Amino acid sequence: MEFICTQENLNKALLAVEKIITKNTTLPILSNVLLETDNSRLKISATNLEIGVSYWIGAKIEKEGSSTIPARVLSSYIAKLPNKKINFKTNENNVLNIFLDEITSNIKGMDAREFPIIPKLNEKPVGKVKNIDFKNALLSTIMASAVSEVRPELSGIYLFFDFTNKALTIAATDSHRLAEKVIPLVKGDFEQGENVSVILPKNTAQELIRVLDNAAYTEITISANQILFSMDGINLISRLIDSKYPDYKQIIPQAFEMEVALETKPLINLIRIAGLFSDTQLMNVSFKTDIANSLIIIKSESEQIGSNEAKIKARIKIKEKEGGNKKETGEDIEIIFNHKQLLEGLSVIFSEKVIFGINTSSAPAVLKPEDANANYLYIIMPKVV
Amino acid sequence: MEFICTQENLNKALLAVEKIITKNTTLPILSNVLLETDNSRLKISATNLEIGVSYWIGAKIEKEGSSTIPARVLSSYIAKLPNKKINFKTNENNVLNIFLDEITSNIKGMDAREFPIIPKLNEKPVGKVKNIDFKNALLSTIMASAVSEVRPELSGIYLFFDFTNKALTIAATDSHRLAEKVIPLVKGDFEQGENVSVILPKNTAQELIRVLDNAAYTEITISANQILFSMDGINLISRLIDSKYPDYKQIIPQAFEMEVALETKPLINLIRIAGLFSDTQLMNVSFKTDIANSLIIIKSESEQIGSNEAKIKARIKIKEKEGGNKKETGEDIEIIFNHKQLLEGLSVIFSEKVIFGINTSSAPAVLKPEDANANYLYIIMPKVV
Repeated sequence: MEFICTQENLNKALLAVEKIITKNTTLPILSNVLLETDNSRLKISATNLEIGVSYWIGAKIEKEGSSTIPARVLSSYIAKLPNKKINFKTNENNVLNIFLDEITSNIKGMDAREFPIIPKLNEKPVGKVKNIDFKNALLSTIMASAVSEVRPELSGIYLFFDFTNKALTIAATDSHRLAEKVIPLVKGDFEQGENVSVILPKNTAQELIRVLDNAAYTEITISANQILFSMDGINLISRLIDSKYPDYKQIIPQAFEMEVALETKPLINLIRIAGLFSDTQLMNVSFKTDIANSLIIIKSESEQIGSNEAKIKARIKIKEKEGGNKKETGEDIEIIFNHKQLLEGLSVIFSEKVIFGINTSSAPAVLKPEDANANYLYIIMPKVV
Repeated sequence: MEFICTQENLNKALLAVEKIITKNTTLPILSNVLLETDNSRLKISATNLEIGVSYWIGAKIEKEGSSTIPARVLSSYIAKLPNKKINFKTNENNVLNIFLDEITSNIKGMDAREFPIIPKLNEKPVGKVKNIDFKNALLSTIMASAVSEVRPELSGIYLFFDFTNKALTIAATDSHRLAEKVIPLVKGDFEQGENVSVILPKNTAQELIRVLDNAAYTEITISANQILFSMDGINLISRLIDSKYPDYKQIIPQAFEMEVALETKPLINLIRIAGLFSDTQLMNVSFKTDIANSLIIIKSESEQIGSNEAKIKARIKIKEKEGGNKKETGEDIEIIFNHKQLLEGLSVIFSEKVIFGINTSSAPAVLKPEDANANYLYIIMPKVV
């Protein structure tokens, strides 16, 4: 193999693919990237057997071929070179010679035939999303997925392709809280059958978040146990979690006794402050309405550290009781949240105000952006003390 | 105790003092900062029994007193408050009440009488340095001190006060390399007797680097086993290492067979590249002159990874042999360095060119900035393979 490419292009490709490489002592070749000539382009691939990423860059191909090279060495080396054209050449022992001006290097590689085959999907794409929407949706839901893999489906991210409504629902839950975001499917000529849902491993979602910057749109292809995300110059293929996702829709409250609107940023700061005074195990923070004064009182306390109390202005809307006295103001309520779970939800609410939908102190509360078009929900189970 | 101060001032003071606090389970009060009213100022102190730092800020003192408060809690809390005036008040149980607008907090403290006494030095200052010089000198030498404490003196930083020449020499060595920087002592009316030298613990040097930003000059006071650095609003007191520093001056070469001038930044990049190909244990990089072509050839190789070779333009000056043929060009020489030690020296050479003073492939080499006024030397022992 012999080719010439720019430092900038190769560097970008290596940074994009090397992240999925995990140290694998039983199969050392997985620490390598596969370099292959592909018509007038160079294809750079890496896999950890769960996720495979391929990246294409423009290159002047002098002699076709392929080789695998240790990813960390190649990537650290290329990153330190100036942005110029670099000459590459492999010899029969899979040594890659790299030439650039006065610097010559040889990196020992392994035979490309020993590299695991990254599967190809024969199915046709089912839909297309805007990368900016998709990335935002993954970022707004991934933290709600379970850390533990005791229930494998909860450790993943749920994707529901609703072809009828041209919408993709992205959801995650660890059973204490749930995040859901709906984004549009871009119109196009796709092979869409019945609505379909899959569960994406969390690592794949994290990797997607990293690569989604690099193009405008992503086409999605689904097979029995794999999913392919393909965008301009990049393919990411992943296994799917083979399990049934819980029917979470049933726990989403449809109406609220009380809707509380608060300024998001000041609230985030107060919850962070409350967190400092909260017991490190329990992580409790109390959220109490003061309807008469249009306030929310946030409190926390720990035996060891001390206590904290803060007030924040709120617009509190009480549900009108049917046939009841319209002047009735409703009763004040105190809800105990886990401050970390609360903060994780608030941190992805980008509107100036956040709306808390509340029923009782033991029923799930809903956080949503003031702007209903955001199509975002974060549901959190209160702590019952 | 009762006082009012601004968030900004207190935040800055807490950030400056809390760094020296190390978790101490046998003496929990060391995790606290000592707050004391001091005339119209608030004094904030912390100690780890090796180093003590005090920081004064302006405050409106309503009621004199003192208390100790867990540093991490107080500092994280104050950092999250807006820059406004904050009211503080302690009660009889050492609970600190903090009031700011709608936020009220109580932090549990401990009695100030249980806090270890930070010693005071009765001696008068021996000299004064410009903080920018002193910080730069510490940053340029500290990396050459030994990590191990097998020889305690080598784990510290040597300070030599040369009152005759109005100079402070700062040096460090781990016996493989040595760094030395000389800075001026600022003129002033000090109690200077004989020239004096001390050995500063590395942690103290690191702490000094952090606080030296905060004022223009530092006065230094030395007692039998302690040293005080005092600047505007900050005192830092430290124990000294009670040991004899090696007479390192004797290993500094006074003349060189060859002086090689190289561009510092491109050289740093080439040594970084060479480091990638160097054996991770040996860390060898070869540095070979090519006098005829005015080049230095940098090479490295590892059994596992591969090899690298780079050339860089050099101005090579050969020592004229006494009575010898003036046209003699000298013989090429190859020296093996540890690339990490070489890089650490190069990274504090701020001039465009660095001069290597070389004698033989087994004699110490000297790196110095092109500008002789920098008064800086980095000496590195070659590796003899």
